[in-house]
Amino acid sequence: MSKEIKSRKEDYSQWYNDIVLKAGLADYSAVKGCMVIKPHGYALWENMRDELDKKFKETGHQNAYFPLFIPKSFLSKEAAHVEGFAKECAVVTHYRLKNDPNGGGVIVDPEAKLEEELIVRPTSETIIWNTYKDWIQSYRDLPLLINQWANVVRWEMRTRLFLRTTEFLWQEGHTAHATREEAVEETEKMLEVYATFAEEFMALPVVRGVKTANERFAGAEDTYCIEALMQDGKALQAGTSHFLGQNFAKAFEVQFRDKDNKLDYVWATSWGVSTRLVGALVMAHSDDEGLVLPPKIAPLQVVIVPIFNKDVAAQEKINNYANELMATLRKQGIRVKYDNDDNQRPGWKFAEYELKGVPVRIALGARDMENNVAEVARRDTKEKANIALDGLATHVTQLLVDIQSNMFNKALQFRNENTRKVDTWDEFVRVLDEQAGFVSAHWDGTSETEEKIKELTKATIRCIPLNNEQEAGKCIHTGNPSTQRVLFARAY
Amino acid sequence: MSKEIKSRKEDYSQWYNDIVLKAGLADYSAVKGCMVIKPHGYALWENMRDELDKKFKETGHQNAYFPLFIPKSFLSKEAAHVEGFAKECAVVTHYRLKNDPNGGGVIVDPEAKLEEELIVRPTSETIIWNTYKDWIQSYRDLPLLINQWANVVRWEMRTRLFLRTTEFLWQEGHTAHATREEAVEETEKMLEVYATFAEEFMALPVVRGVKTANERFAGAEDTYCIEALMQDGKALQAGTSHFLGQNFAKAFEVQFRDKDNKLDYVWATSWGVSTRLVGALVMAHSDDEGLVLPPKIAPLQVVIVPIFNKDVAAQEKINNYANELMATLRKQGIRVKYDNDDNQRPGWKFAEYELKGVPVRIALGARDMENNVAEVARRDTKEKANIALDGLATHVTQLLVDIQSNMFNKALQFRNENTRKVDTWDEFVRVLDEQAGFVSAHWDGTSETEEKIKELTKATIRCIPLNNEQEAGKCIHTGNPSTQRVLFARAY
Repeated sequence: MSKEIKSRKEDYSQWYNDIVLKAGLADYSAVKGCMVIKPHGYALWENMRDELDKKFKETGHQNAYFPLFIPKSFLSKEAAHVEGFAKECAVVTHYRLKNDPNGGGVIVDPEAKLEEELIVRPTSETIIWNTYKDWIQSYRDLPLLINQWANVVRWEMRTRLFLRTTEFLWQEGHTAHATREEAVEETEKMLEVYATFAEEFMALPVVRGVKTANERFAGAEDTYCIEALMQDGKALQAGTSHFLGQNFAKAFEVQFRDKDNKLDYVWATSWGVSTRLVGALVMAHSDDEGLVLPPKIAPLQVVIVPIFNKDVAAQEKINNYANELMATLRKQGIRVKYDNDDNQRPGWKFAEYELKGVPVRIALGARDMENNVAEVARRDTKEKANIALDGLATHVTQLLVDIQSNMFNKALQFRNENTRKVDTWDEFVRVLDEQAGFVSAHWDGTSETEEKIKELTKATIRCIPLNNEQEAGKCIHTGNPSTQRVLFARAY
Repeated sequence: MSKEIKSRKEDYSQWYNDIVLKAGLADYSAVKGCMVIKPHGYALWENMRDELDKKFKETGHQNAYFPLFIPKSFLSKEAAHVEGFAKECAVVTHYRLKNDPNGGGVIVDPEAKLEEELIVRPTSETIIWNTYKDWIQSYRDLPLLINQWANVVRWEMRTRLFLRTTEFLWQEGHTAHATREEAVEETEKMLEVYATFAEEFMALPVVRGVKTANERFAGAEDTYCIEALMQDGKALQAGTSHFLGQNFAKAFEVQFRDKDNKLDYVWATSWGVSTRLVGALVMAHSDDEGLVLPPKIAPLQVVIVPIFNKDVAAQEKINNYANELMATLRKQGIRVKYDNDDNQRPGWKFAEYELKGVPVRIALGARDMENNVAEVARRDTKEKANIALDGLATHVTQLLVDIQSNMFNKALQFRNENTRKVDTWDEFVRVLDEQAGFVSAHWDGTSETEEKIKELTKATIRCIPLNNEQEAGKCIHTGNPSTQRVLFARAY
């Protein structure tokens, strides 16, 4: 496979696919809309998962696992929920194959038809709340704070590697509470967990906000979200946290006795992030040479490449130094590799590790070693510097910290430069067409206007930012009075 | 739910279910044959997974993720494979639901029928080897050492929590090699990884062996296995590692060019363990009071329970000491909890932690504290001792090591006592009926005899142990000549 990557300017969409495929993050599969997550992509997901999992446990959640299949009738129990998911479900109707009596290989055995069809979970509220019915009787059983790591399936017509695939990996938290206040607090707490994770680990600045009624999760009273901006100026929803009210408790008859022995329905939340985050990571930071990964979640943080000449003594000196340096860095918890494979030339390796996004590359050459220096290249800015061997480990440790914060600041600056207050319809359309990015504008608060704007411009309301400034104004489209600006964008 | 557990003597099978349900490991679900893995059960699986994952990575494997769905035609490509799995497949035939025009909720949309049905993976050899076709061209692409953590579905008619469920969680390694020798070596290496894990972490002694042709994985040339003995004398297959020869490479046309530029088919292995291991853990070690967990994989290793009287100063002294002790133990990486919840009495807590299998319980009472001792109870033997506070942390650390090895030794002794050499048919039948356990007996090497013995006694050949002693003898059933004994047992 050629390592060539289309430039972002030439074809942003192709650039993204090239990076995902050529940096070894994922591959197309034989099943329409499903991808194969390759080792480099999976290692990224593992690092994200481990970090999030730690945060979930620190906030009192436990992991569990619920069935992949959902009886069809469960979906129907919450009206908005079935409306939202029925159109994109994989349906299991049979449980056996048999040999074709006409010799055409195996066929579905018509006698093995299920009495009730099973849906491959698109999300698990229904099967989980059907289970919670047995687990919750009293206020003593609350709060119930559970998360699951799982695969889910939504039958998407148009798919893109990581960003929108028929099957994807995710986590879904499902919590149960005694009061509305407590459930809202949980919804907001988990949104903040996502936001901090995105900013501190993925170096991805996000806007924390609330969705409009149109964009709400099917079955939620409120959907909170974090929204990020990609390099082409399109927005990407990076995580959602839903306040579900008592909708699922009512649908599945989950009641509890409070301290006064009074029966009430349980309050619910659910929240999730998915392998889509890997796509966000690529789109937010990478460049025309390949992936650029934030050190905190890069599978490999430092690579050491020797540049050998024919002097065997010098080679040995390089090997010894590299092994020592590796040991020192590993002791500090840094993920480092010494690539002394002599089947490939240094130049080839440089390009390869650039493509794969390794944050720091150290080149050890014979002459440099004599001068007691090494060449250190950082992936984010592509700057190179000769650094004294004495103190190199300390330098590298600090450099990883700098790269992490530089990547965040660069993305933040980009977002700030690409968030524009707009007050007229013409300007609104012009900005969307010519500059993209987030557009902060007044909206009259109705679903009709929101839909009309989407129809005319393909822009949606990404969110009403949390702690939004209240400000009197006129709706960008209808001119009707408005009390606050909301964030519009075209989105993935 | 009553916490009462049937005794093993009274009803072993009910005892097992009681423990799984009442210790909070799993629950039945609304979907036939599928279970809900509850937090305590999932935490056990996480600890097993993390340890195995570390071992896989140390042996050079990388994780990846392949699609949940397998096109029906893929299954047919390897003849033995389809024969083995077609009869227990969940089949996706449609991708959409719609509202019933007659008002009966949602129904499968007949217009959304898939052109080719998709099978929910029962195992992933076919989809993975179809992918490897694109990844392998040259000997330089080999070996390819990949593992995936995933859920799989096999439509079982009779299910049991953890031991046999329609959906289960597992890992499946799939490796590709340039030579037969290398693939066989990998198969054996991974069997040894499983065996060491079972013995060192689960405290579960296992027999390493090879399956007979009858019991081989569908599509394998050889299936290696580890077999454990449960407390009722039935055997349980705890892990398998398959040498697949070139079967899947030929079925999916995966060829590579060797160093001499000659084309050859690739050699394959696959290997897996599943959530079944959680069932094995319960059956091997637990007692009539509940779970008994080996410290190395117990989610909670030590629990500290205060026994307060009304003296507030004494309470404070207990709290302070407990917090100090916790901090000391945590520094040593021990998973410890101080349960000072005053809604429950100490006696209730003792029973609860016994049920959940926490290896060490420390009770801190006011009078004991005055005497500078604490009561330390170990779960495996139920012995209690008063231990001086000075040195308590060291004592506990050592106790965890002792419990781990005591559990292994006890299980080993049980297996040794229940492995019997038998040389006549009458004795064979008598031992199986009256004593159970492993029966080491001669067999003439034919599938016919093996099947006949199974039909007559329900015992199967669990394995031909590795490095089996060669010894002339006569088949237990036919009297035909035999060169070695094999291990028979009734099995889960």
